[in-house]
Amino acid sequence: MRHDSRQNDQLRPIKVQRRYTKATPGSILISAGDTVVLCTASLEDSVPPWKKYDETPSGWVTAEYNMLPGSTSPRKRRKPDGRSSEIQRLIGRSLRAVVDFAALGPRTITVDCDVLQADGGTRTLSITGGFLALLDTVLAIPETCQLAEGEIFDPKKVFSDSVAAVSVGVVSGEPVLDLDYIEDSTAGVDMNVVMTGSSDFVEVQGTAEGQTFNRGMLDAQLELATLGIKQLTKIQRECFGADWPL
Amino acid sequence: MRHDSRQNDQLRPIKVQRRYTKATPGSILISAGDTVVLCTASLEDSVPPWKKYDETPSGWVTAEYNMLPGSTSPRKRRKPDGRSSEIQRLIGRSLRAVVDFAALGPRTITVDCDVLQADGGTRTLSITGGFLALLDTVLAIPETCQLAEGEIFDPKKVFSDSVAAVSVGVVSGEPVLDLDYIEDSTAGVDMNVVMTGSSDFVEVQGTAEGQTFNRGMLDAQLELATLGIKQLTKIQRECFGADWPL
Amino acid sequence: MRHDSRQNDQLRPIKVQRRYTKATPGSILISAGDTVVLCTASLEDSVPPWKKYDETPSGWVTAEYNMLPGSTSPRKRRKPDGRSSEIQRLIGRSLRAVVDFAALGPRTITVDCDVLQADGGTRTLSITGGFLALLDTVLAIPETCQLAEGEIFDPKKVFSDSVAAVSVGVVSGEPVLDLDYIEDSTAGVDMNVVMTGSSDFVEVQGTAEGQTFNRGMLDAQLELATLGIKQLTKIQRECFGADWPL
Amino acid sequence: MRHDSRQNDQLRPIKVQRRYTKATPGSILISAGDTVVLCTASLEDSVPPWKKYDETPSGWVTAEYNMLPGSTSPRKRRKPDGRSSEIQRLIGRSLRAVVDFAALGPRTITVDCDVLQADGGTRTLSITGGFLALLDTVLAIPETCQLAEGEIFDPKKVFSDSVAAVSVGVVSGEPVLDLDYIEDSTAGVDMNVVMTGSSDFVEVQGTAEGQTFNRGMLDAQLELATLGIKQLTKIQRECFGADWPL
Amino acid sequence: MRHDSRQNDQLRPIKVQRRYTKATPGSILISAGDTVVLCTASLEDSVPPWKKYDETPSGWVTAEYNMLPGSTSPRKRRKPDGRSSEIQRLIGRSLRAVVDFAALGPRTITVDCDVLQADGGTRTLSITGGFLALLDTVLAIPETCQLAEGEIFDPKKVFSDSVAAVSVGVVSGEPVLDLDYIEDSTAGVDMNVVMTGSSDFVEVQGTAEGQTFNRGMLDAQLELATLGIKQLTKIQRECFGADWPL
Amino acid sequence: MRHDSRQNDQLRPIKVQRRYTKATPGSILISAGDTVVLCTASLEDSVPPWKKYDETPSGWVTAEYNMLPGSTSPRKRRKPDGRSSEIQRLIGRSLRAVVDFAALGPRTITVDCDVLQADGGTRTLSITGGFLALLDTVLAIPETCQLAEGEIFDPKKVFSDSVAAVSVGVVSGEPVLDLDYIEDSTAGVDMNVVMTGSSDFVEVQGTAEGQTFNRGMLDAQLELATLGIKQLTKIQRECFGADWPL
Repeated sequence: MRHDSRQNDQLRPIKVQRRYTKATPGSILISAGDTVVLCTASLEDSVPPWKKYDETPSGWVTAEYNMLPGSTSPRKRRKPDGRSSEIQRLIGRSLRAVVDFAALGPRTITVDCDVLQADGGTRTLSITGGFLALLDTVLAIPETCQLAEGEIFDPKKVFSDSVAAVSVGVVSGEPVLDLDYIEDSTAGVDMNVVMTGSSDFVEVQGTAEGQTFNRGMLDAQLELATLGIKQLTKIQRECFGADWPL
Repeated sequence: MRHDSRQNDQLRPIKVQRRYTKATPGSILISAGDTVVLCTASLEDSVPPWKKYDETPSGWVTAEYNMLPGSTSPRKRRKPDGRSSEIQRLIGRSLRAVVDFAALGPRTITVDCDVLQADGGTRTLSITGGFLALLDTVLAIPETCQLAEGEIFDPKKVFSDSVAAVSVGVVSGEPVLDLDYIEDSTAGVDMNVVMTGSSDFVEVQGTAEGQTFNRGMLDAQLELATLGIKQLTKIQRECFGADWPL
Repeated sequence: MRHDSRQNDQLRPIKVQRRYTKATPGSILISAGDTVVLCTASLEDSVPPWKKYDETPSGWVTAEYNMLPGSTSPRKRRKPDGRSSEIQRLIGRSLRAVVDFAALGPRTITVDCDVLQADGGTRTLSITGGFLALLDTVLAIPETCQLAEGEIFDPKKVFSDSVAAVSVGVVSGEPVLDLDYIEDSTAGVDMNVVMTGSSDFVEVQGTAEGQTFNRGMLDAQLELATLGIKQLTKIQRECFGADWPL
Repeated sequence: MRHDSRQNDQLRPIKVQRRYTKATPGSILISAGDTVVLCTASLEDSVPPWKKYDETPSGWVTAEYNMLPGSTSPRKRRKPDGRSSEIQRLIGRSLRAVVDFAALGPRTITVDCDVLQADGGTRTLSITGGFLALLDTVLAIPETCQLAEGEIFDPKKVFSDSVAAVSVGVVSGEPVLDLDYIEDSTAGVDMNVVMTGSSDFVEVQGTAEGQTFNRGMLDAQLELATLGIKQLTKIQRECFGADWPL
Repeated sequence: MRHDSRQNDQLRPIKVQRRYTKATPGSILISAGDTVVLCTASLEDSVPPWKKYDETPSGWVTAEYNMLPGSTSPRKRRKPDGRSSEIQRLIGRSLRAVVDFAALGPRTITVDCDVLQADGGTRTLSITGGFLALLDTVLAIPETCQLAEGEIFDPKKVFSDSVAAVSVGVVSGEPVLDLDYIEDSTAGVDMNVVMTGSSDFVEVQGTAEGQTFNRGMLDAQLELATLGIKQLTKIQRECFGADWPL
Repeated sequence: MRHDSRQNDQLRPIKVQRRYTKATPGSILISAGDTVVLCTASLEDSVPPWKKYDETPSGWVTAEYNMLPGSTSPRKRRKPDGRSSEIQRLIGRSLRAVVDFAALGPRTITVDCDVLQADGGTRTLSITGGFLALLDTVLAIPETCQLAEGEIFDPKKVFSDSVAAVSVGVVSGEPVLDLDYIEDSTAGVDMNVVMTGSSDFVEVQGTAEGQTFNRGMLDAQLELATLGIKQLTKIQRECFGADWPL
């Protein structure tokens, strides 16, 4: 039994609050147990320099990740580190995997994932919540942006699928889903899996912490991840209700 | 009449949520209208290098201030700037003005003020909320810290007074209390006033924006600020109820 | 009596040397007792990026502040710090408060205040001297700049007023004018006041150092500051004689 | 058929030159086709600050990764970037997975992987070559270090296994082994697999580039990676001959 | 006799490998004894900003110098330092002294000198090898660049002369040529001399290390340097054979 | 004839003001024509980390060089650059060449050379003035420092000689002494020579600017430099009068 009485294949309680703040078109406060992330998505009517001279105008999606100093104990110092940079690259890649940049048009969306409280799984929760912030921002484009002449913007065409992420790992020799901080600290293997709503893989990142793992254990973890992502996708869909475009 | 129908001497609605997150002993989510700041206070059982060799051990309080990228539109880039550095120095000085460092003992408290949504008055709200986070952290010392041999820690002795802050300014030629962003943008004078619960001054910072102001207008603003601080002190006190040590 | 035998309302001896160096159109060496600041003002025939596309071309004034390593003991390390950044923002705001940017035309003036010797009051002396360097630079525009077609440049129209600054504070319980380093170190309140030649306020920054102050003490300090600024304005005017445009 | 006529399961030609330079105890020049990496390993008789006060002294292994400016066209600018930081964290984790820090003793080994020429697969080749540089450095400890009193240093005990890495991916819909730059640019999925000499996993990092992949395709790639690692392990072993301690 | 049995006027064995890597048109691996430098030269079809608006288009040559961490013991940390910056300025000036920028046309060549192993004389060897990398890059222009309309590019016209460099110094009171690290550490005077193939001076940099030197000793060293440069020029010429354009 | 009517072997007028500011024991304002440098020297009763564990305690001398933004036109931006770093290394080496660190005792002296106005020759003037600031600081040690038990501090023993520097160059084909900015801009060769009061060399740095120079021209410049240093040494000596310890 896990230290918090969960089953091995059980997620922590997930809560999602849509439109948490107003300054950005997308603003999602998402929590999994005690891990809390504020995901906001800002929209700019321009594209990065390296896209400026493309013949067909197309957009871009980028992400930033940060832990607030008070999100953890001992306090985390406020300065960019390699870990954060690696995580935000992962979030960005994951979100871009389901976006059609031509359909997005010449716009840049920046998804900011700021961790208010960290209890394990901050990067995967950032992806799950970040996708929702991104989605709300795309839905807001028709009202907030000046469309190009002749442009018919269809939010449904921007996304090929939804995306969500979850961690799995091996704790006390058993594969478990959605590790919290205590489990993460003692896990022999730590794996982050990013999948689409249709259960295809976007990213698989498995790391042995001071040990190694065989093929059977890899497969067991991938099963758990697939189960977890199905539930997260359902939660995402319910949160948006009729607004869900997919 | 002001654009949001407030009286000139009226604060925006203030909400305070104590113990918003759990990773730090002090965690206050405070809002004034649409301005929302998360104030957390972390405790370290050590002192800055320049205090290490003091004969009588005494503590320190420092503050950091940051706006989340999605707290404003257009998005604020994530990097330290002169304005943030200036603001966090103000917050730190304001909090330290009411702290007795000998009574605090050899401990360092860092108050982090992270702006989740910015609609004017972020620095003054950070002081008002930051004091509460600091207070909760000091109250937690007896339970969370190893006291020195013979040390009797009394939270009441750490504070000489409470502290709160508010902005005042001159908008359309009239002095007004607690400016929001729209007022701030058009204000001819912008003033931040930090005062104690006993109505003494801690800091007065008044800036003419592209104009100047005479002595009469200065006095009118100071009256408004004094009124505002009285109300904020009352809210601080009510939020802590029987825990209020002063 | 003050440690250097001054009256409470007495400035230190002020000396101003105009055209101290030749590389910049404005170059003022100013001292107040042992505090010595070199203020130079450089002129550029262009404007900051965010002003480039304004319909009516208008200029900008910015300031930088720095203490030379040997200006103080122990030696100050050569690197930007929060305090310097805060001070140069104050100097810039103070100078801009009396400048008409449309009359200045599409030009940028950078006022550099480099402290050669620091004995208290460096930021206020930088404003008092920096205004003179700025003035000389504006006076030099007709000779040194290519005017736009049809432009009639009138230095008198660039300035709405003159500006000067002085510190006041509370030392041994008494309000005093123009604190030197020894007084500054023991002052209970430290206040910097920036005013125009017509005795209007531009900035008021009062800070209690580990204590607080009541309204009566605030008023007493503002009186002293008003007196001090009047004398400084007279010295500024005498230094420029017939060149004084206001 | 692949653009360079290789079979889907065929590595590029691998060359390893041991003791390429003399300044460090480990120095390996390794190439896979046109990708060339110089791996050196430096030894320090001390440990990181956070290990200093451990009761049982134990060592540390860290890695740095860098591409020389002329290793690629267009020239790569000389400055740390997020990608390099992410890669060197991967290399460090991979090497540490097979090291017993207690057996290593209180020593720090830094493995530097400098890419002289980049044609795809630089991070995996850095791991394969970096392990050899690390191995040579550990073998040199008895001669080059002052052993602690009573310490019997046994290089065989430092390593639980060998480690090597290879990339796999999906190109034109087919899973292929050891992608060069041309293949990497067009790959739909890019996967880096780090395994031990005994075919256990250390890291699995799979990324869909602008698409997604299903479970079958994941499995096919893992098969290829396992095959490739077996060959790389054989090459590592042959390079060290009788010196191979495992 | 010198510690490695060389005569005072004898160079270390020099080896040059042309076209060591393929990513850049110029790639020279050069060694003098145990000092090994990889010099690559990259070509860009553009010029620095300050050359963009010149009437007659002309090119630029710049250099960067870096020591790999493993090139020396103890390991050199990876970060720019004053010494490297000074050396790369010297390399750049030395190469530019023999280049006709008008003949080069609107192109920028960056010569990167990365030290793989350091045993004294890295900066002079970087100049000697860097010139060859530069030469190969200029020779490649006709094939790799789009020539301007009517442009007839003649590599011979780009160079007024060849350039090479060598160190001299005073060791145990005697002037010696081409110091290795051991000699460099004990040298009383250390001098770097850059000369053309025609024996004219480009740079002379002599430094007394904790002592001084008289005119006679200066002259003796300049003689040795002149001899050494003649030999290095011969080696440069032989390496290029019929390709040598001068 | 030179553009300012000087003879080829004539220095610009040199002025030296001793004890210009009071915060540091050494403070020299030195000018050569329109080049003005403020040299201050600060004293610390400690030594750099790498000297801390030496058996015989000995001191250190270091230098920093900086141009004020207003010292030149167009304005120089305030940020460290390669040129400044190279110059301050030269100044430090030059001063250290005549200092006996054992006689100095465990103290660090930092010589700051801040250029108030730049008209050519700032680095050489910094050395000439910096030596005087260093000298005054050493003379002040007996009064300002706590001597070690049994220490007899003798300023005369700290210096083996005096040091001064001057530039020479080739302008319009003729060798000239002490170039100002106009000459420097058109010089074909630019040479900085640092010599002792006894006419021995400390540093020789000659650079051909876009051309080369032969041995005869090198010798002619060295003659001029020797003459110039003799005069500068005389001025240094006169400035200190009876305080001159050598």
